[in-house]
Amino acid sequence: MTGDDLAMRLRRIEDRAEIAGLVHAYCDRFDRNDPEGVAALFTPDARIDYNPDTPDLRGDGLAAAIAVGLRDTFLATSHHVSNLEVVLEGADAARSTCYLDAWHRYRDGSPDGFLWGRYEHRYRRTAGGWRITELVLRGHGTIDFHRTRMHGIDRRD
Amino acid sequence: MTGDDLAMRLRRIEDRAEIAGLVHAYCDRFDRNDPEGVAALFTPDARIDYNPDTPDLRGDGLAAAIAVGLRDTFLATSHHVSNLEVVLEGADAARSTCYLDAWHRYRDGSPDGFLWGRYEHRYRRTAGGWRITELVLRGHGTIDFHRTRMHGIDRRD
Amino acid sequence: MTGDDLAMRLRRIEDRAEIAGLVHAYCDRFDRNDPEGVAALFTPDARIDYNPDTPDLRGDGLAAAIAVGLRDTFLATSHHVSNLEVVLEGADAARSTCYLDAWHRYRDGSPDGFLWGRYEHRYRRTAGGWRITELVLRGHGTIDFHRTRMHGIDRRD
Repeated sequence: MTGDDLAMRLRRIEDRAEIAGLVHAYCDRFDRNDPEGVAALFTPDARIDYNPDTPDLRGDGLAAAIAVGLRDTFLATSHHVSNLEVVLEGADAARSTCYLDAWHRYRDGSPDGFLWGRYEHRYRRTAGGWRITELVLRGHGTIDFHRTRMHGIDRRD
Repeated sequence: MTGDDLAMRLRRIEDRAEIAGLVHAYCDRFDRNDPEGVAALFTPDARIDYNPDTPDLRGDGLAAAIAVGLRDTFLATSHHVSNLEVVLEGADAARSTCYLDAWHRYRDGSPDGFLWGRYEHRYRRTAGGWRITELVLRGHGTIDFHRTRMHGIDRRD
Repeated sequence: MTGDDLAMRLRRIEDRAEIAGLVHAYCDRFDRNDPEGVAALFTPDARIDYNPDTPDLRGDGLAAAIAVGLRDTFLATSHHVSNLEVVLEGADAARSTCYLDAWHRYRDGSPDGFLWGRYEHRYRRTAGGWRITELVLRGHGTIDFHRTRMHGIDRRD
């Protein structure tokens, strides 16, 4: 076992922790209604696919795209992520899956919306650290959620 | 501090991450209705104890035992685990506790079932990697869950 | 890369894991109705700020302060933490933020109470290991919770 081997293994653990930090920062910025802070976690060319009914968003258009909804639709949100599994793909790319338990309170007084699902992310290491290059949201199920159609997980019948 | 010490400590961190991966894979395979995928995470002689009212299951009978329920009882499920604490017991054995927040939608139209509880797992390192040798599910509380009796956590009165 | 560098990075990873363990132990001891076990995770001079309407608690008074509520208010609770980000501040101090999804069943038969929020913790390394020196609870939102006022997260309007 050489020091180089140990350093590489340690680096992978640190990379996973930094990537987990991106996912946690996404939740924090979203729940604080900080659309610019959300967008700063993505590369400009990132693809964001929240649902099958609206066009994909891009990293450089993300802040503007979510600002209105964050301000006018939600009075409060809470995005709890868990079950995170990060797979490093070479030194500078990665992907992950995590579960999401998201609670939403609406400005218009609609009943609180619940979403249980998962995020599928891709990442790239940039000069400024890891950034998200792709986000796909999939739903396991919802109650009183403001969207009825979600990407599914192909659960077997 | 020798390289061997560092390597051993690094190995323990990697072992914990691999074990966390088993718990996450369990949730993913369960929520996808993949009973064979669930069972592949256990040793053939594993003991699975979901509740006090039905006999324990064994790893080599797990897929068959859960296949009917996964197909006929649930339209969708979502198993969110957190609070994971892994304790390594020597080089090739481990145990862990984690919290579970599980949501269930039923095929028969019953109200969605909620379970808050914990998994207690034991593990063994095999030639193919870590596997689960024991799973005990304990409930903190439920709402509209399809089981009324659960193993408890001996909360003090 | 020297062995000392590797050892320091490894130590930071282990510190973060030990600190995560404190947060998980807090949830476990709370949900088991073990006020002394909760208090043992804090330094005697720790500051605990659960809400804006009651005085801060101190570590050495915490067990007595929460014992009555744990026994008389709650029939059961479940504290699920996630999104944990630990920041080490030198060798012997740290802070963290994590999300909390907490479910409460009341002895008086009130509807179950739900809290979605976050803990902000500070920690200090002591002779006996890491201990919590500060806990501030902030709410994102609640349903049927026994407190109506919570510290907020300054979500932008």
